[in-house]
Amino acid sequence: MTASPGTALWGGRFAAPPDAALERLNRSLDVDRRLWPQDVRGSRAWVRALEGAEVLTTAESTALLEGLDAVADRLSGWTAADFAAAPDEDIHTLVERLLGEEVGALAGKLHTGRSRNDQVATDARLWALDAVEELDGQLRLLEVALVEQAERHAGTPMPAFTHLQAAQPVAVGHWLASHAWPLERDRGRLRDARTRIGTLPLGSGAVAGCPFPVDREALRRELGFGRVSENSMDAVADRDWVAELLFVAALVGTHLSRLAEDLVVFASPGYGFVRLSDAFSTGSSLMPQKRNPDALELARAKAGTLLGELVGLLAALKGTPSGYNKDLQEDKALLFRAVDTLTATLPAVAGTVRTLEVDADRCRAALAPSLMATDLADALVDRGMPFRSAHETVGRVLLVAERTGRPLTEFPAGELQTVAPELEGLDLERILDPARSMERRASVGGTAPGRVRDQLASLRARLG
Amino acid sequence: MTASPGTALWGGRFAAPPDAALERLNRSLDVDRRLWPQDVRGSRAWVRALEGAEVLTTAESTALLEGLDAVADRLSGWTAADFAAAPDEDIHTLVERLLGEEVGALAGKLHTGRSRNDQVATDARLWALDAVEELDGQLRLLEVALVEQAERHAGTPMPAFTHLQAAQPVAVGHWLASHAWPLERDRGRLRDARTRIGTLPLGSGAVAGCPFPVDREALRRELGFGRVSENSMDAVADRDWVAELLFVAALVGTHLSRLAEDLVVFASPGYGFVRLSDAFSTGSSLMPQKRNPDALELARAKAGTLLGELVGLLAALKGTPSGYNKDLQEDKALLFRAVDTLTATLPAVAGTVRTLEVDADRCRAALAPSLMATDLADALVDRGMPFRSAHETVGRVLLVAERTGRPLTEFPAGELQTVAPELEGLDLERILDPARSMERRASVGGTAPGRVRDQLASLRARLG
Amino acid sequence: MTASPGTALWGGRFAAPPDAALERLNRSLDVDRRLWPQDVRGSRAWVRALEGAEVLTTAESTALLEGLDAVADRLSGWTAADFAAAPDEDIHTLVERLLGEEVGALAGKLHTGRSRNDQVATDARLWALDAVEELDGQLRLLEVALVEQAERHAGTPMPAFTHLQAAQPVAVGHWLASHAWPLERDRGRLRDARTRIGTLPLGSGAVAGCPFPVDREALRRELGFGRVSENSMDAVADRDWVAELLFVAALVGTHLSRLAEDLVVFASPGYGFVRLSDAFSTGSSLMPQKRNPDALELARAKAGTLLGELVGLLAALKGTPSGYNKDLQEDKALLFRAVDTLTATLPAVAGTVRTLEVDADRCRAALAPSLMATDLADALVDRGMPFRSAHETVGRVLLVAERTGRPLTEFPAGELQTVAPELEGLDLERILDPARSMERRASVGGTAPGRVRDQLASLRARLG
Amino acid sequence: MTASPGTALWGGRFAAPPDAALERLNRSLDVDRRLWPQDVRGSRAWVRALEGAEVLTTAESTALLEGLDAVADRLSGWTAADFAAAPDEDIHTLVERLLGEEVGALAGKLHTGRSRNDQVATDARLWALDAVEELDGQLRLLEVALVEQAERHAGTPMPAFTHLQAAQPVAVGHWLASHAWPLERDRGRLRDARTRIGTLPLGSGAVAGCPFPVDREALRRELGFGRVSENSMDAVADRDWVAELLFVAALVGTHLSRLAEDLVVFASPGYGFVRLSDAFSTGSSLMPQKRNPDALELARAKAGTLLGELVGLLAALKGTPSGYNKDLQEDKALLFRAVDTLTATLPAVAGTVRTLEVDADRCRAALAPSLMATDLADALVDRGMPFRSAHETVGRVLLVAERTGRPLTEFPAGELQTVAPELEGLDLERILDPARSMERRASVGGTAPGRVRDQLASLRARLG
Repeated sequence: MTASPGTALWGGRFAAPPDAALERLNRSLDVDRRLWPQDVRGSRAWVRALEGAEVLTTAESTALLEGLDAVADRLSGWTAADFAAAPDEDIHTLVERLLGEEVGALAGKLHTGRSRNDQVATDARLWALDAVEELDGQLRLLEVALVEQAERHAGTPMPAFTHLQAAQPVAVGHWLASHAWPLERDRGRLRDARTRIGTLPLGSGAVAGCPFPVDREALRRELGFGRVSENSMDAVADRDWVAELLFVAALVGTHLSRLAEDLVVFASPGYGFVRLSDAFSTGSSLMPQKRNPDALELARAKAGTLLGELVGLLAALKGTPSGYNKDLQEDKALLFRAVDTLTATLPAVAGTVRTLEVDADRCRAALAPSLMATDLADALVDRGMPFRSAHETVGRVLLVAERTGRPLTEFPAGELQTVAPELEGLDLERILDPARSMERRASVGGTAPGRVRDQLASLRARLG
Repeated sequence: MTASPGTALWGGRFAAPPDAALERLNRSLDVDRRLWPQDVRGSRAWVRALEGAEVLTTAESTALLEGLDAVADRLSGWTAADFAAAPDEDIHTLVERLLGEEVGALAGKLHTGRSRNDQVATDARLWALDAVEELDGQLRLLEVALVEQAERHAGTPMPAFTHLQAAQPVAVGHWLASHAWPLERDRGRLRDARTRIGTLPLGSGAVAGCPFPVDREALRRELGFGRVSENSMDAVADRDWVAELLFVAALVGTHLSRLAEDLVVFASPGYGFVRLSDAFSTGSSLMPQKRNPDALELARAKAGTLLGELVGLLAALKGTPSGYNKDLQEDKALLFRAVDTLTATLPAVAGTVRTLEVDADRCRAALAPSLMATDLADALVDRGMPFRSAHETVGRVLLVAERTGRPLTEFPAGELQTVAPELEGLDLERILDPARSMERRASVGGTAPGRVRDQLASLRARLG
Repeated sequence: MTASPGTALWGGRFAAPPDAALERLNRSLDVDRRLWPQDVRGSRAWVRALEGAEVLTTAESTALLEGLDAVADRLSGWTAADFAAAPDEDIHTLVERLLGEEVGALAGKLHTGRSRNDQVATDARLWALDAVEELDGQLRLLEVALVEQAERHAGTPMPAFTHLQAAQPVAVGHWLASHAWPLERDRGRLRDARTRIGTLPLGSGAVAGCPFPVDREALRRELGFGRVSENSMDAVADRDWVAELLFVAALVGTHLSRLAEDLVVFASPGYGFVRLSDAFSTGSSLMPQKRNPDALELARAKAGTLLGELVGLLAALKGTPSGYNKDLQEDKALLFRAVDTLTATLPAVAGTVRTLEVDADRCRAALAPSLMATDLADALVDRGMPFRSAHETVGRVLLVAERTGRPLTEFPAGELQTVAPELEGLDLERILDPARSMERRASVGGTAPGRVRDQLASLRARLG
Repeated sequence: MTASPGTALWGGRFAAPPDAALERLNRSLDVDRRLWPQDVRGSRAWVRALEGAEVLTTAESTALLEGLDAVADRLSGWTAADFAAAPDEDIHTLVERLLGEEVGALAGKLHTGRSRNDQVATDARLWALDAVEELDGQLRLLEVALVEQAERHAGTPMPAFTHLQAAQPVAVGHWLASHAWPLERDRGRLRDARTRIGTLPLGSGAVAGCPFPVDREALRRELGFGRVSENSMDAVADRDWVAELLFVAALVGTHLSRLAEDLVVFASPGYGFVRLSDAFSTGSSLMPQKRNPDALELARAKAGTLLGELVGLLAALKGTPSGYNKDLQEDKALLFRAVDTLTATLPAVAGTVRTLEVDADRCRAALAPSLMATDLADALVDRGMPFRSAHETVGRVLLVAERTGRPLTEFPAGELQTVAPELEGLDLERILDPARSMERRASVGGTAPGRVRDQLASLRARLG
C-alpha cells in the first residue's frame, strides 16, 4: 500500500504524507469495514441533527441523506477484496469519500461538529447492541437443547461426580440442566451489559462536547439508545462496555468448556454415557476407527482464546491517559473476534447436544453401591447417631468391601453387621437402591425426579 | 507440619494418613480462616434448619447454637499465629473441632445433610456480600473526592488532551468528572453482581441435593439471600460470581490506572497542573529533591495485578468437569486478594485526589491558541463553508504559524488573511478565546461551565 | 499503623508525614521481608566496594561489616509478627535502621552512592538465583518419579488417546515419559533464564549511575553474578527476568495440569488405569466412599493462578515510563507467590506419581481391536494399496463391526473378507495383536519397548 | 458452506456428513492456508523418507515430488478468495487433493505412516523458524535506529525521570540506549526459543510413532532441524514453543510500550524533548492543529493484545489430556497474529525513532538545579559527612528553595549557608552544573559521556 495523502481526513497541515509503515499499522479498514451499516446509520442521524441545529438546510439534509443511501447501496455489494483495495484509512473516511462521489463538496459538511472519536464509539455500540441480541438468541438455543435432552431423561439415573470420582446418583436430566443454569446467568449478564452499552456518545465531539446546538435526545431516540452520555471526555474514551461484553464472552466460554469437558469424558470409551451423532463427530486421517468430538474440544479451547481477548483489551486500556488515545482502536478487532468465536461455537455445541444420545444402560451400570454410602450413613443418623460417627462407621464398612473386592450389595446377609454392628436391622437393599437415593433429595434444587421436573419448568419459563 | 489424621473430617476409610506434601498443598486454613464469622453464621442457620426438619431436637439445637456462640467467642480472639498453629485442614474442620470441645459428640450432628461443598460456597457468598458493600462505599468516597474538586474548578480552563496532544479547552471540573463516571458505572456493575451473588447454595449437599426436608426458603431469609439455587450440581460448582466480582475489580483497577496516569503526568514538572499534598507524596532515599506519586503509581500497577487475579480464576475454572472439583478451592485466595487490593488502594487514591491542589495558572498557561483551531474552522462553517474545507484552510494557517514559530494570536492584524483570505472579517481575538470555546460546547455532556454544573449535580444525585 | 516519619529514609524535605492510607498501601515490608538475607549480603558487598573506592576507611568498613553481621543475627530470629510490628517502610529501611542501632551514625554512610532502586533489583535477583536452583531440583525429582514408574512399565500396553478417544496401543512407560519431556524443556528454560537473571544492577545508583569509583566487576564476582549491567536506566527498571521466570512457572503449571488431567481421568472409575496411594488421596466430609485426587486437582488449578501472576506482572509493566517507577514494586509479591506455588505443588505431584500403582490388567482390558485399525490399513499398504484407499477399506470394515456390535477379533474366519475382499489372506490375529502394533513403532520416538528403553536412558542421562 | 464429505480425509466410517455448524467451526483453512509452502516442503521430505524406507519406489517418489512441485506452482498463484472457495477442511487436505489432481491415485500413498498430527506440528515449526529470523532482523533494525540517534546525542543532557519526576541529568543517548538493551535481551530469548523450536516431530505418527522404518535423522537434516523428538506422544502435543514465542512477543510488546510511553510523553507539549516527523505523525479529522503519535500509541496497545495471545494459548492448553487434542488447533491463529502484529509494529516504531528530532534546547531547559541535589549531598559526603545526614541537610535546603520559589542557583552567595552552615566553602556553581553531574557517573553503566560511548560500542558489537 502506498501513502495516499489525498484520502486522509486530516492532511492540511502536514508537509509529508504518512510513511508506508505507519499507514500499514494505522489502517483499520480491514477490521472496521463491517461497521459500514452502522456508520451510515449514525451519519444519517447526524445529518438530521445538524438540520435540527440549523447547520444544514433542509435541501442539504435531503441531498446528504440520499447520498448516504446511495453509499449504502454501493457498499452492500462490496466484497472483502473491494475493501482491501480501497485507499482509505478507516470506514469513516471511506464513507465520507464515497459520499463526496455522490454529492460533491456538500459531503464536506457532514463532519461538522462531529469527530471520528464520538462517531466510532457510536458505530461500535450500535453494532454491539445487535451482537448482544444474536448472542442471547444463540445461548437460548443451547439452553433449549439442554432442557429438551434433560426432559427426556428427568429420571434416568447416572453417577454424579465430584473430583471426577463417582459421588451420588443423580438424574441425567439434573446433570444436563446443571449446564443450562450458568448460561441462563450469562443471559442475565448480557441484559445488564446491554443497558450500559445503550448510552449514546454521538454529540461529544472530539473530547470537549459539540459546539453546535444539536438535540442529543432526538439523536438518542432515533438511534435506539437508552440514555445520552453526560461527559464528553468520558464518552469518547469509554470502552468499559467492550470489556464487559468480552468478560461475558469469556465466561460463556468457560461454561462451554465445562460442558465440553463433561461430554468429552462421558463420550470416551471408559464411560460411554453419551454417544455423539455422526454429524457432530469427525474422523482421523490416519486411524480409521476414530470418532472425535472436535466441536467440543474447540469449544473447550475457546474458553482460553476468549479469555485472551478480554486480557488484550483490559491490558491495552490500562494506564492510558484520559481523552481519546489511538490505543482504543484495538477494541474492535477484539470485540469482533470474541463475538465471531461465540457465534461459530454456540451452534456447533448446541447441535452436538441436540443430537447426542444418552446410553441409559451404561449410566446405570456405573452406579456402584458405594454411591449410596451417604444414604447408609443417613440411615444411622435417622436412628440418632451423630452424622460424624455414622460417616466413620460407613467408612469402615467400605474399607472391608474394598479390600475384599466385593460391592456392598454382594455381601451375604448379616456379614456386614459383623464388621459394623450398628448396621443391624437396616434394610440394606432398600438403602442401597439408587432410585431411593435420588428420591430422598427432594428439597429445592435436589435430584429427586419431581424436583428435576420443577426445575426444568422453571428453566422453560425463563426461556420464554 | 505433620500429618494429623485425627482432625480430618473424612479419615474413616483410609489406611494411611495424608503425606506431609499433600497436607501442605491441600491445607486452606491460612486463606479461609477469615471466613470464620460466616462459617459460624451459616452453621447457626443450618442448626435451625435441621431442627425445622426434625433432624435435631430443640434441646440439641439450643445446645449447638450455644456451642457455636462459644466457638465464635473463642475465634474472635485468635491471632494469625493461633490459626497457623491449628492442625485443621480448613475453617470448617476447625469450627467443627472447636464445637466438639464445647458440646461433645453432639457436634457430630451438625454436618448432617450438609457438605463442605455447599458450606464453603455459602460462607464465601456471605463474605462477598459484605465486600460488595465495602467496595461500593469506597468507590463512592473516591467519586465524592473527584466531584468536590470538580465543583471547585467547574469553570477553570485547562487543555483537554487526545493522544496526549493538547486538543481543546475544557473545564478542570469536566476533566475530573470524566474520571467519576467510569467509577459510577462500576458501582452499577457491583449492584448487578450482588444480585447474582445473593443466590443461596446451602442445602445442596455434596452435589445431589439435601436428603433431609430442610426449608431452604427459611434458610434464605435467615441468611439474607435473594433467592435459592435451583440445581444442586450447579450450586456447589458455581464460581461465576467470583469471576464477576474479579472482573469488576479489574475494571475498577483499569479506571484507577487511567486516573493515576493523568495525575502522574499532570503532576510531573512538564505540566504541573496539579500538586500532590505532602501527605500523599513520598521521597527518595538517594535524591533529596524528589516528590513521588507512589500511591498513584501503585494504583496504576494494581490494574495489572487485579487483571491477573481474574485470569487466574477463569483459567483455573476452564475445562473442569461438572460437580465440585478441588480446583475451585483457588477461588478464595484470588477473591480476598482482589478485595484487599482495592480496599488498600481506593482510600489512598481518594486521599490523593481530596488533598491535591490544582494550579489554575499553569493550566491556563498551557492553552495555546491552536487549541481553538476547531473553533476557527467552525467560524468558517458558520459562513457556509463545508467543514472539510474549513479544516483544510485552518490547517494551512497553522502550518504557517508553526513554521514561523508564532502563536496565532501574535500575528499582526491582517497577516493571516494573506495566507488564508477566507479568514477576512472574522473576529480572531474572540474566536481564539478559550472561554468562548468552552461556552460553545453547551450541548449535553459538553464542557460549557453551566453544563459542567448540571453534570456534577447529576453525579451528586447518584452519590446520594 | 500510624505514620512514622522518623523511620523513612527520605523525610527531610517534607512538611507533613505520609497519610496512614498511603503508608498502608506503600509499605512493602510484609512482602519483601524475606529478602533480608539478600539485603544484608548485598550491603556487605557494597561496604567493600565503598572501601575500595576510598569512600569508607578500612576501620569504617570493618565496623559496618560487623554491624551487618549483628543485624543478620538479630533478623534470623525474627518471626512474622516481629516484622509486622516493625515501623519500617521496607526491608532496606529496616536493615539500615537496625544497623544504626548497632553502629550509630556510621550506618548513615552505607547508602552512599547507592539507591533503593539498584539495591532492591540486586536483592531480588540474588533471591531468584536461589529459587531457580530450588525449582530445577524439584522438577528433576518429579521427572525421576516419572522415569522410575516408566521403567517399571516400559512394555506394559495401554491405549494412547487422542481427542480422549482410544487411538493406538502404547507402552505405559511411553505415556509416563511423555510427561517428563516437557518438564525437561522447562529445566532448559530455567537455565536460559538464569543467565539473564545473573546481570548485576548494583552500582547503577537511582537511575544515572554511581558517582563514586566503585569496582563493579569486583562486586559482580563477590555476589556471584555473570555480568554487570551496561546501562543504569535499564538496570533499575529491568523486570524482564521476573517475567521470564513467571512465564517458565506458568508453563510448568501448564505441564502439571496436563499430567494432572491424565491422572485424574485415568484414576477415575471409568478407567482405573492408575490407583493413587492413600497418602496422596483425600476423603469427603459427607461421602465416606470417596478417594479424591486433591493434589492433582490443585496442581491443575495452579496452571491458572500461575498464568494470573504472569499476566499481573506484564500488565503492570505495560506502558510505564522509563526509569524506576513505583509500579515495579509489585514484582516481588508475584515472584514469591509463583515460586511458593510451585515449591508447594511439585513435591505433592512428585509424591503422587512416585506412589501410584498402575493397574496393568485394566490398561490391557481397554485395548479394543479397533486400536489396531491403522495396523490393518498398513498391512494393505504393504501389499501396494495406497494408504488413502486402505484407510477407506478399514473404515468400512469398522462400520460393520460397530453396527453389529462385535469387536474385529470376534468375527468368524472369512466373514470380514465378505465385507472387504481386500483383506483376503491377511493374518488378522497377528495384525490385531497390540504387542505387534507397539513393536512396529520402532523409529526414534516410537513406542516399541526397545525404543522406550532408549528414550528412558536418554532422560536418565539428562537427569544426571 | 455446505458439508463436503468427499474432501475429508477420514470419511470411510461415517454414515452422515458433518453438520454445517461443525464444518464451519472446525475448518482451519482460512488460518492455516499460509502454511502451504511448509506443507509442501514437509511432504517432499516425507516422500524421500518413504522412498528410503522402501515404502515407495523411486518412480513413485519421483512422480510424487513432481506432483508436489506442480501443486506448489498452483498454490503460489492463489488469492485469499481462492482459498476461501476451496471445500477442504485444512491445508493438508487441500494439498493432498490437489496432488491427486496431478498424479491420481498415487497421491493416496503420501500419507502412509504420517498423521496430520505430526504433519501440522512440523509445518508450524518450519514457519516459526522463518518468523524468528524475521523478528530478529526487525528488532535489530529498531535497535540500530535507537543507537544511531543515541550516537548523535551521546553527550546532550536531559533529565532522567523516576516516578515521572525529574531525577538526575543523563545523556539523551543514555536514555535512548536504555530502550535498546531490553530488545537486545529479547533477541537472546528468540535465539533460545529457536533451539527448542528446532526439534523435528515428523515421524511420530498420530501418537504412537511411525510403523515404517523411516530415517528421521535424514528427515531432520533435510528440513534443517537441530534434533529429532524422542517421544511421539509429546511430539504431537508439544506447543511449548508456541507459548515461548508468544511470551517473547508479549515481552517485546511490553518493551515497545515503555519506549512508546516515553516518546508520547516527551513529544507532548509539556516536554517537547522530541519532535516526531510528519511521516510518522497523523492528524485529526476535527482538530486541524493536532500531530498525533498514532504509531506509538498503537505500539503501546499491542503490549496488551500480545499479552492476550499468550494468555489465549496457555489457557487453551491448560488441563488438556495427553496426546493430540483438537484444542491445539487454536495455536496457529494466535501464533500468526502475534507475529503479524510485531512485523507491522516494529517497522513503524523503528521509523518513528529513526526520523524523530531531539530538541536539545528543551531538554537542557528542563534541568532544574534541584536535579543536582544528590551531587550536593555527595559533596558533603566527600567531606566525611554520612550520606544519610547529607541527604537530610540537602532536603532542608531544598525546602527553603521551594518555599521561596527560587531555584538553588539563584540564591545570592552565602544565603544558603545561613540555612545550612554545612554548605560553607562548597563551590555550588560547579556542583550544580549538569555536565559535571553526568561526568561523575563514570562507573560501568553510568551516564558519563565516555561511558555512554563505550556502551554504544558494546551495543554496536552485538548488532553485528
